[in-house]
Amino acid sequence: MAERAFSSTELYDAWPILSVEEKVEGFQLLPLEEREPFFRQLSARDEAKLLENFSSAERRNWIRVLAPEDAADVIQETAPQAREDLLSSIDEPLKSEVKGLLAYAEDQAGGLMSPRYARLRPGMTVEEAFSYLRRDARDREKNVYYAFVVDPQERLLGVVSFRDLFSARGDQSIQDVMRRNVVTARDDLDQEALSDLFARHNLMMIPIVDAQSRIKGVVTHDDIIDVLREEATEDIHKIGGMEALDAPYLQIPLSQMIKKRGGWLAALFLGEMLTATAMGYYEDQISRAVVLALFVPLIISSGGNSGSQASTLVIRAMALKEIRISDWWRVVRREFSAGIALGGILATIGLMRILAWQGLFHSYGEHYMLIALTVAFSLLGVVLWGTLAGSVLPIVLRLLGFDPASASAPFVATLVDVTGLIIYFSVATVILRGSLL
Amino acid sequence: MAERAFSSTELYDAWPILSVEEKVEGFQLLPLEEREPFFRQLSARDEAKLLENFSSAERRNWIRVLAPEDAADVIQETAPQAREDLLSSIDEPLKSEVKGLLAYAEDQAGGLMSPRYARLRPGMTVEEAFSYLRRDARDREKNVYYAFVVDPQERLLGVVSFRDLFSARGDQSIQDVMRRNVVTARDDLDQEALSDLFARHNLMMIPIVDAQSRIKGVVTHDDIIDVLREEATEDIHKIGGMEALDAPYLQIPLSQMIKKRGGWLAALFLGEMLTATAMGYYEDQISRAVVLALFVPLIISSGGNSGSQASTLVIRAMALKEIRISDWWRVVRREFSAGIALGGILATIGLMRILAWQGLFHSYGEHYMLIALTVAFSLLGVVLWGTLAGSVLPIVLRLLGFDPASASAPFVATLVDVTGLIIYFSVATVILRGSLL
Repeated sequence: MAERAFSSTELYDAWPILSVEEKVEGFQLLPLEEREPFFRQLSARDEAKLLENFSSAERRNWIRVLAPEDAADVIQETAPQAREDLLSSIDEPLKSEVKGLLAYAEDQAGGLMSPRYARLRPGMTVEEAFSYLRRDARDREKNVYYAFVVDPQERLLGVVSFRDLFSARGDQSIQDVMRRNVVTARDDLDQEALSDLFARHNLMMIPIVDAQSRIKGVVTHDDIIDVLREEATEDIHKIGGMEALDAPYLQIPLSQMIKKRGGWLAALFLGEMLTATAMGYYEDQISRAVVLALFVPLIISSGGNSGSQASTLVIRAMALKEIRISDWWRVVRREFSAGIALGGILATIGLMRILAWQGLFHSYGEHYMLIALTVAFSLLGVVLWGTLAGSVLPIVLRLLGFDPASASAPFVATLVDVTGLIIYFSVATVILRGSLL
Repeated sequence: MAERAFSSTELYDAWPILSVEEKVEGFQLLPLEEREPFFRQLSARDEAKLLENFSSAERRNWIRVLAPEDAADVIQETAPQAREDLLSSIDEPLKSEVKGLLAYAEDQAGGLMSPRYARLRPGMTVEEAFSYLRRDARDREKNVYYAFVVDPQERLLGVVSFRDLFSARGDQSIQDVMRRNVVTARDDLDQEALSDLFARHNLMMIPIVDAQSRIKGVVTHDDIIDVLREEATEDIHKIGGMEALDAPYLQIPLSQMIKKRGGWLAALFLGEMLTATAMGYYEDQISRAVVLALFVPLIISSGGNSGSQASTLVIRAMALKEIRISDWWRVVRREFSAGIALGGILATIGLMRILAWQGLFHSYGEHYMLIALTVAFSLLGVVLWGTLAGSVLPIVLRLLGFDPASASAPFVATLVDVTGLIIYFSVATVILRGSLL
């Protein structure tokens, strides 16, 4: 890396392809005033990497600029042997805040929350609340867009938005202005359920409470954006037929990536071996009518494609809560109609293709019409079956307590490939008996 | 539906499976105080449906509870012939705000923004700002967490967060307190780019400006959550091999769903027809060694699975800006290593399977070792090729200006299936020449 100062935009753009040493060097070459905003916008993983390579004075300095929930994330990303060292370099009160947060898993509401929020007593007037909040805000960084009204045991009584405060008269009492009907979340709530709460109620901030209804912190919208991206990435990876990667593509070690892909690929392969068994069962028919083998890839890929359309649709609709388990019969009815229509379209195209090739090249001998009908009826059956299996399997998996996203694609693929062969050769046996077979 | 009042939670849960008439009836049976929060949390599509079925007095009443950007969304969801009618039932000033928003496409920053925001002049003191904002907030609903400092031509000079106001002294001037370095977005910016801006800078609110740098409105975090869900759904549908549906699964008309799935399914089918052509080319070899046909589904599905893993990974990483076009060589190097490793794993399993079956059932005759080697080398080649093709194609499509998500899955599937057959039969020709072939 050249020995000149980079702008933070240049560094940001080059970031993914830099080595750790280059990152540290690039960061230290940034103009002084750009370092703090740059450091704050990094991922917890990158912040941890920089801190590990800093001198202990720098480390002490830089962990201080983070909000407690971000500092806790950084410590969770740090190698275990360096954690104690990093914790000991944090000053109070940040240190105890961070320790409190480390008790929660990263994907729980408690792991996402900020322990810094504005607090009011029910008996204050609006005017008193204003001056209290103004004093409090000077003190340290806080989420001041909502203030939470609590009793002496820290139990949540109500919430006052700043909009409420601004539109109230100065002499009104806080308990007359506050809203009592507050949407809260328990500290052990899963982050996916928490993001559903945000979406359902259109909220900006949700207070997090413990089992005794005491407020422990707040989660804001911007924390949820990261959760949503993460959950969508996980689902997309699973639909793509692998375990979800937990780091950016260019940063995850190759060995880990191979493990996460190889596991499912091998499982799929073991399942697909049944196709060789099924084909072996029909070896006789193939040797009598080799022409049957020509359409095997076309038939099974059509079943696979229609199955993956249906399972993708249903998986996503379940993730968005558009479909619940109890809707299974409505899904089956829809997919039955869709499967007949889609199978009909492919059957028609397949029929025309064989007739056209026969007309042009005489590819399929005297029984071309029977072959065309075999392919057409098989397509109808395979597409219908693929569509039904693809749509029902995610629902069955959810019913059994599995994650529909992670297992559907492989199951559907294997199921539809093997049964597709059985459908194809069964149709062939019926239609071609006495002619080719 | 029974003639008793539902709670809003019951109605919310039943909502997806109700007919329009039942929705209208259920809504009108809600306790009075629950109707407004229930109405506000509905999707624009549902709000439009209810309004269309209300009396004109009710319609006037209910459109009024919406924020201008939500009212504009509702009008965009309304059938064209009913739009004028709905617009005419809106009172000023909401009507002109809505009309201003309708000029923007739904997926532009301008279509997402709220035209109501708090505005300050640079010369005010903090104390004056407070009382001005308190007066203003009583007036009508506003996004008051940030106030924007503008000149007389409405050009944006800076921003003051409420946290800044709270921590400032009352006699300071706004221009001394405001931050001048404001991240803004142009009103015609695409919503996906806008959501990247939010994620990159960790912002709560972004002011939207026109070509003359005049502020037109603000977009807040909660608008972006919906955008993120929508974009992820689109990508997931495209990766599943169909056009993205633009309505919830149970609500989209069957005919539209068939169109969106049938198009890609037919395109894929046309591509896959090349497999029949390729197989036809090797018909002779198959008739001499029918055993070769047995492994065709296994080989091409392995190529397809490894290809879809790689393309899914790269598509998602590009959507998250983890990979750019210029990283293509790094991607190729990683996927080359991954492909060799994954292909090696499958080749080993395949080899052992054939040797085991031969030992147990004598399935493959005297040349079983050559057959096993043919399958193993083909797997290595097909998986490596699938992995490389799957990872490079999305990058090439982006380079050519296409959406990588929508076309990669089909292209990769077809490409890998056809070339997989060619690889398999070529390997067979080399290894089995003089024995089976």
